[in-house]
Amino acid sequence: MDEIANRDAYTRSERTKLRLKRDRGAYDKAVVHDILDASILCHVGTVVDGEPYVTPTAFWREGDHIYWHGSAASRALKAQAQGMRVCVTVAHLDGLVIARSGMHSSINYRSVMMFGTATVVSDPDHKRRAMDIFVSRFMPGRARSNRPPTATELKGTTLMTMHLDEVSAKVRTGDPGDDREDYALPIWAGVVDIATVVEGIRPDPLNMEGVAMPESLAAYRPGRPVGDVMREIYDADADAAADASDT
Amino acid sequence: MDEIANRDAYTRSERTKLRLKRDRGAYDKAVVHDILDASILCHVGTVVDGEPYVTPTAFWREGDHIYWHGSAASRALKAQAQGMRVCVTVAHLDGLVIARSGMHSSINYRSVMMFGTATVVSDPDHKRRAMDIFVSRFMPGRARSNRPPTATELKGTTLMTMHLDEVSAKVRTGDPGDDREDYALPIWAGVVDIATVVEGIRPDPLNMEGVAMPESLAAYRPGRPVGDVMREIYDADADAAADASDT
Repeated sequence: MDEIANRDAYTRSERTKLRLKRDRGAYDKAVVHDILDASILCHVGTVVDGEPYVTPTAFWREGDHIYWHGSAASRALKAQAQGMRVCVTVAHLDGLVIARSGMHSSINYRSVMMFGTATVVSDPDHKRRAMDIFVSRFMPGRARSNRPPTATELKGTTLMTMHLDEVSAKVRTGDPGDDREDYALPIWAGVVDIATVVEGIRPDPLNMEGVAMPESLAAYRPGRPVGDVMREIYDADADAAADASDT
Repeated sequence: MDEIANRDAYTRSERTKLRLKRDRGAYDKAVVHDILDASILCHVGTVVDGEPYVTPTAFWREGDHIYWHGSAASRALKAQAQGMRVCVTVAHLDGLVIARSGMHSSINYRSVMMFGTATVVSDPDHKRRAMDIFVSRFMPGRARSNRPPTATELKGTTLMTMHLDEVSAKVRTGDPGDDREDYALPIWAGVVDIATVVEGIRPDPLNMEGVAMPESLAAYRPGRPVGDVMREIYDADADAAADASDT
């Protein structure tokens, strides 16, 4: 097993070592974090009674940990609460690659696979702080301006965390990569670029009269890739939540 | 175990039975297919040596089966080739639900979880026909106009299929659902709508001179939700691929 002793990179393991298309893989933290911080949803894979489960859920990153949460009554989280092995995967769809052959037609994507042991965050301060960061992940400072969580709400929420260690990114970008002789064929090839964007903001019709939309939402401009907004918020968010947890 | 004896719905099992937020779940085939046919990527969960793996990959539906494929050399597919238990999950991110409290802040989404046993499609005719349908899934008729697969390419591709039986959809739409008393708080709430859209089409700079973009790509209009295009193609695609496999 070859390992990279590099604190700017994740450990390469038997699981995360890419056997195919190695040029598409990366262990650099910068690459991995860039993909994670542009994400809202991940897919959490667990094994319960020998059977695979894949659950889509929102997550967020703090340093070398990721967090996700759910109801304390959820079966999937109950299973994970005992310190279960998980594989958490994130994937962004960036385009359809239409090659001259079906064989080389592909998808442009950015993905990250994270293997580890998920544990429950039971310390109340840690839990409260992490939940504040989650809330402010979408709107900087929101943890200070919305109705704070009650003790019952916090108790009813299971917060999971996983240390990032065995992690790899896989990315495909650019034009089709056809067989050399196929470039001489009169067949159109190209890429349909795809992006996950903000469509718009719809205020709740039940908002109290005169309540203005928070300025922090202005970053969600229609047509803007939501991953760009998420990345932009990332730093401001972490600061704001840290402030909020001090108050 | 309560089951729905209804050929328009999938069987409700211990696994797919929703314990929480039951109003968000559905077993109707129409609902499930609508979500699947608007999708390009799924996340395939498997168990290898007791460990969970979640692999993002492209997939497509034909009737009550889904298909996905990959290199015959891939570890994940090798494991599945023996008829492995899988959980295949699809999720669309539709919006950020910003409630008056963190507790009720949420995500608008459409998701499907499919449990079953994945098997390899080894019959060459079935494999070729399914791969043609996949190619035409993105561009109706493409299987007839691109360079057809070679015997070696078909051999190097492992095609997996799974019968849809134990399947459920989970959907959240609409405005925040806050606690009744929180509606009297002067806190802005609303939804940031999100869509995965076509950004544009980039012809391969290495296309032969005079090779025109196929008309079937016109459906990928910039700004259009790619799921709408995928659903629209679905019927035409199946017909075209069936024609192609006859020639």
